[in-house]
Amino acid sequence: MGKDKVQIFDTTLRDGEQVPGCKLDTEQKLVIAERLDQLGVDVIEAGFPISSPGDFKSVHEIAKLVKNATVCGLTRAVKKDIEVAAEAIKIAKKPRIHTGIGTSDSHIKFKFNSTREQIIERAVEAVAYAKTFVEDVEFYAEDAGRTDNEYLAQVCEAVIKAGATVLNIPDTTGYCLPEEYGAKMKYLKENVKGIDKAILSCHCHNDLGLATANSIAGVINGARQIECTINGIGERAGNTSLEEVVMILRQHPYLNLDTNINSKLLWDTSQMVSQKMGMPVQPNKAIVGSNAFAHSSGIHQDGVIKQRETYEIIDPKDVGVSESSIVLTARSGRAALAYRAKKVGYELTKLQLDVVYENFLKYADRKKEILDNDIHEIVETSNISIQNIA
Amino acid sequence: MGKDKVQIFDTTLRDGEQVPGCKLDTEQKLVIAERLDQLGVDVIEAGFPISSPGDFKSVHEIAKLVKNATVCGLTRAVKKDIEVAAEAIKIAKKPRIHTGIGTSDSHIKFKFNSTREQIIERAVEAVAYAKTFVEDVEFYAEDAGRTDNEYLAQVCEAVIKAGATVLNIPDTTGYCLPEEYGAKMKYLKENVKGIDKAILSCHCHNDLGLATANSIAGVINGARQIECTINGIGERAGNTSLEEVVMILRQHPYLNLDTNINSKLLWDTSQMVSQKMGMPVQPNKAIVGSNAFAHSSGIHQDGVIKQRETYEIIDPKDVGVSESSIVLTARSGRAALAYRAKKVGYELTKLQLDVVYENFLKYADRKKEILDNDIHEIVETSNISIQNIA
Repeated sequence: MGKDKVQIFDTTLRDGEQVPGCKLDTEQKLVIAERLDQLGVDVIEAGFPISSPGDFKSVHEIAKLVKNATVCGLTRAVKKDIEVAAEAIKIAKKPRIHTGIGTSDSHIKFKFNSTREQIIERAVEAVAYAKTFVEDVEFYAEDAGRTDNEYLAQVCEAVIKAGATVLNIPDTTGYCLPEEYGAKMKYLKENVKGIDKAILSCHCHNDLGLATANSIAGVINGARQIECTINGIGERAGNTSLEEVVMILRQHPYLNLDTNINSKLLWDTSQMVSQKMGMPVQPNKAIVGSNAFAHSSGIHQDGVIKQRETYEIIDPKDVGVSESSIVLTARSGRAALAYRAKKVGYELTKLQLDVVYENFLKYADRKKEILDNDIHEIVETSNISIQNIA
Repeated sequence: MGKDKVQIFDTTLRDGEQVPGCKLDTEQKLVIAERLDQLGVDVIEAGFPISSPGDFKSVHEIAKLVKNATVCGLTRAVKKDIEVAAEAIKIAKKPRIHTGIGTSDSHIKFKFNSTREQIIERAVEAVAYAKTFVEDVEFYAEDAGRTDNEYLAQVCEAVIKAGATVLNIPDTTGYCLPEEYGAKMKYLKENVKGIDKAILSCHCHNDLGLATANSIAGVINGARQIECTINGIGERAGNTSLEEVVMILRQHPYLNLDTNINSKLLWDTSQMVSQKMGMPVQPNKAIVGSNAFAHSSGIHQDGVIKQRETYEIIDPKDVGVSESSIVLTARSGRAALAYRAKKVGYELTKLQLDVVYENFLKYADRKKEILDNDIHEIVETSNISIQNIA
């Protein structure tokens, strides 16, 4: 039996682009949308059409361009929003409207000054209205992470009846622990009548560093869509990182879940988004950071050189990185030095290596990183007779 | 009853400093060590003394300087390593030796070309030898994440008998899922004889973006120490982020777990480590990223202005950030514009706001971010009569 498919809903161009300083023009968005389509995402959330004329135009152009993915536009539970989104995406091969409303008591009271009953009415109206334009309507229950499960189940049941095809359960504040978020999905899967007619979707924020873990807990407990962004960009501490959830599922085959993503394009896509948005990826970012596959400590380097699998669990090639780099610093051991020395032409015996290594440590204590040129200098100033194999 | 304390074991100066390009000199390390001590970490892993003369010196100087925290030196399960580490830390008020060996089949076979029985012998010898120098000996079972639980329990039992006070269970490759890592801790807690004589410690790597979630799963299941670094720096994708685990425990009081960290120093400490190591923190980094408390989308800004708690779960002041910044972009709504306009002196009526907002959107579609100066220009080129309250 094949693995269950988890849909990847990319919101780099909507939730990601909302980030201060990350605004893109239409042309930049089109380049990214095309790449996301090649990457194999199932849904591209292209923008929030009512928010500005520029955003409307971008969503419309993306809807025209994209070949395979569903193109989705965001709205509030407001008629005008839905009309404008419908207009923006109607040319798409697979259009989706994403509408919704806050369902936590905090949102109902402070944001809408409303009641639970009225919120359900507005949710149902919005979904039904969106349904007059497109078949595929996703509903978001904003702040679902802090919405009590019983009421959330009522909301879900009502919007499924109104025609919602996907139920987005956002942990809007990034507050949930994985156990809690997983339990919420399980509760909905078990208690919402008609749940088999819709797909449950994880939309997690990273305020506490848990977006990835929460999304994985969600799909383990029955969700079949993850909303995420390249490099985890998004408001505040960002959204779930696409590259992390994709590689977690691929690295844990026993979960029996997979995505349609061509992981070999992850690295390039990450670089493209980072450059176009001017948002640096920190070197220690999982999967796509510049150090993600770099080894510098002696213990680790020794292990990697003996057998890559000892320390790396992902083959860098699988995410589009050409090879593990063995970086030399004062923490590096003899094995790493021997490996790099060999690469630049010195085959050192064990005794020679001992001498060169002593000399290396003196250099390395003064310099952050030892480069190929330094290696030549270190070997040649060491008191050994060497056989240069170059 | 008070909350259970989780010890924070900071390894910024050891596992963090191993990162390519992050090497610090002794003076820089002393400044960071002093700050970590003020921050309230329980243990500072100061380095790997045998690795180089520079590292020995740094560990020794840190051991002299630190007032409150335990100062710890890393070793392999090798006599010479242990002797050198003991020498480096002996001047500390509270010295600890951290020794250990790989316990997964992969490590035993490829790294040590040894057997399970021999590895237990070497582990016990190392702990017993370290114990001749210091009372406080932590043992690490390298690659515990991929070590089978039954054998791992045997190793733990043996080293506790030899005097280990802390058992470090590293997920060296960052491969574990939170459920799995939590279950491992639970298994050890329930199956290791004498486990009440030692503290179980979480040491997680972030290769799949799960280090924080795994550490939290660990303490929920009985561990009482987390090994972590400022900004999550560390080899490859880094280690568990100190700031994330600390704030997760503080934000979930029902877990009944807390640390000794003074969270108000988190932001400054993050900045200090980033600058000294030359390691940028990405803007969307949880807790300490520059955007962690920034809001730019209209929906969110409206909510935050009405009631901070609607979108933020952490009061920025609690981590040393002075206030949430409301950043204006083309995604911002009327509420955000009104809020910022008021801050620079314009009290706009609803009708005025509508007009200014239209004008604002034209500016915002051309500019990434709207600053105070732009607001003056936008208001003054809008076709309204305004009452400037400044």
